[in-house]
Amino acid sequence: MGSDHEKAKATVTVSRNELQEFTATIFHAAGLTLKNASLAAQVLVNADARGVESHGVARLPVYLDRIEKGGSSATAEPVIEREFGAIAVVDGKNALGMITGFFGMENAIRLARIHGIGAVSCHNSGHFGPAAEYARLGPLNDCITISSTNVNTSMAPWGGISPLLGNNPIAIAAPTGADPFILDMALSTVARGKIRLAAARGEEIPLGWGLDSEGTPTTDAKAALDGLITPLGGPKGSALAISVDILCALLSGAATSPDVKSQAFLTDPQDVGHFFLAIYVPAFVDLNDYRNRIDHMLEQIRNSTPAAGVQQIYAPGDIEKLSEERANKEGISLQVSTWKAISEKAAVLNIPMPNSR
Amino acid sequence: MGSDHEKAKATVTVSRNELQEFTATIFHAAGLTLKNASLAAQVLVNADARGVESHGVARLPVYLDRIEKGGSSATAEPVIEREFGAIAVVDGKNALGMITGFFGMENAIRLARIHGIGAVSCHNSGHFGPAAEYARLGPLNDCITISSTNVNTSMAPWGGISPLLGNNPIAIAAPTGADPFILDMALSTVARGKIRLAAARGEEIPLGWGLDSEGTPTTDAKAALDGLITPLGGPKGSALAISVDILCALLSGAATSPDVKSQAFLTDPQDVGHFFLAIYVPAFVDLNDYRNRIDHMLEQIRNSTPAAGVQQIYAPGDIEKLSEERANKEGISLQVSTWKAISEKAAVLNIPMPNSR
Repeated sequence: MGSDHEKAKATVTVSRNELQEFTATIFHAAGLTLKNASLAAQVLVNADARGVESHGVARLPVYLDRIEKGGSSATAEPVIEREFGAIAVVDGKNALGMITGFFGMENAIRLARIHGIGAVSCHNSGHFGPAAEYARLGPLNDCITISSTNVNTSMAPWGGISPLLGNNPIAIAAPTGADPFILDMALSTVARGKIRLAAARGEEIPLGWGLDSEGTPTTDAKAALDGLITPLGGPKGSALAISVDILCALLSGAATSPDVKSQAFLTDPQDVGHFFLAIYVPAFVDLNDYRNRIDHMLEQIRNSTPAAGVQQIYAPGDIEKLSEERANKEGISLQVSTWKAISEKAAVLNIPMPNSR
Repeated sequence: MGSDHEKAKATVTVSRNELQEFTATIFHAAGLTLKNASLAAQVLVNADARGVESHGVARLPVYLDRIEKGGSSATAEPVIEREFGAIAVVDGKNALGMITGFFGMENAIRLARIHGIGAVSCHNSGHFGPAAEYARLGPLNDCITISSTNVNTSMAPWGGISPLLGNNPIAIAAPTGADPFILDMALSTVARGKIRLAAARGEEIPLGWGLDSEGTPTTDAKAALDGLITPLGGPKGSALAISVDILCALLSGAATSPDVKSQAFLTDPQDVGHFFLAIYVPAFVDLNDYRNRIDHMLEQIRNSTPAAGVQQIYAPGDIEKLSEERANKEGISLQVSTWKAISEKAAVLNIPMPNSR
């Protein structure tokens, strides 16, 4: 009871719709078009609704600060710089990553519906939040999608201690007969945002998540933030992170991870690269057969025998969907520190805060 | 010295070229065309040369046994069943996986050179050896490639103990200005072949590689072979394994991992599925710029600061290339048990063994 009470005190709850409207209003006040403001808000609020707090409205202040300080452009619109057959290269024009993210994935899906498969690389973009938010567009369009981005460095190549790799996330989404299959993972043992939250809360992290700046494993979240996070499974995550950087940066002309600027350098364009792939399922197989087969596959997994102590086996995307259903009913709970930070931004822009409890 | 001597006694060394010629001859004698026999041999011998002993000529007997017992076809040729824009679906016609693998990747590259990207899914195929052997065709054709296959089950979905997932390998290759970038990884903590070799040698495996059939972590290689191997990084490897099964089986009509027959059921077609993706680099960016950038990226990694006790940091593919250079100079070392097994096959087909020392 004690810890429930403490948790209740440390969070503020707000309705999802009101948080969406508020966040879109604030992005619009910062200079984004109504459409782009709504898209950018959708990414952050969906992240909170789906339990990905580290990429939710907690990031709203830094996006606004970047616009104010000139690191990101509020008014830029991404453009197709080059199109060849089933592929395109996009110049994000230093718009927010969310705007370039949607533009990139929408074009990959457009190309896939014509050619069976489509790929779009993007340069001159910024931090785009959860990769899943773009991958999710695939299943709405009968496509399997892969969404990836490079990020600034936080990991060393396997065997080393020089921070040359980002923990470049990959999301994969696939249509089903019901809710989509959605995998979203960073190529580190855990997402850096989880270590950042632990540091903010003064909590320790499990051994194996991070290394201090000399390469020694540590449970100190702040030391790991100043040091390195570990690649997923050692050499495999290390090599996958390089692969994602090849796709995102070398196929687009974006900076590679060592040259991607941190979001925190508010005056500097980040030159992040993204890579989006869309595969149009009906080009390959009968869509109904496909839906029946994937539903069967995922039901088999959900209904399989759990290990001792496990209540329920989830398919990728299930936990986020449950979180989303809860958020729709009960509202989104934000850390008090997040609430305060966005309240300050709202006050400056003279925008009323959403109702909260 | 003692252990070097023991190792020398336990292996037989043969020249790579002679092993290639021998293996091709034996596949041809088993009914494959000269061209297909040479391709199938190339996969196995390259695996040995590149240090991937678990997928080398140690597997030759089972491929021959499957042909003899009817599980695989020696004479079948894969066909394109469907082509739509930049994608194709291939029916492997139950040829050896190596034959369908080359056919699939060659077509993905053909489509990529026309459309900027190409994808081919294959069904009715078999065990195709190391995924890297097909991915390697990409860099020879200015393509970044992804090669993947589903395999029969060896892992449980995260949180469970029912063996519903294969440790479905993924290989990614990218051209450079020098030797290609090549990543080849199974989606388990380690490849099942490593546990099989440990079991054959009577060695223990490190904790974390496998679970016994009740889901308890074990160091007993045989218990892990009878039980489960663990997915890479827990939930991430589990979700990636499902993703690969979606691409390989659901986009081709092949069996999903739970229905893929083990190679060891000699009379049964396996109905393995593969998925091949090729991305034509010059469709996106200037090829020379790309080559300079990837060379710089990989050199930065190789020249970065190693952790304590590490001599050299390798880029993906470097270790296999060093192994290959050694094999070209010094020959390929095979386990005596492998040598004996292939000698028996050669005797039956009246084919002389290559020179050995």
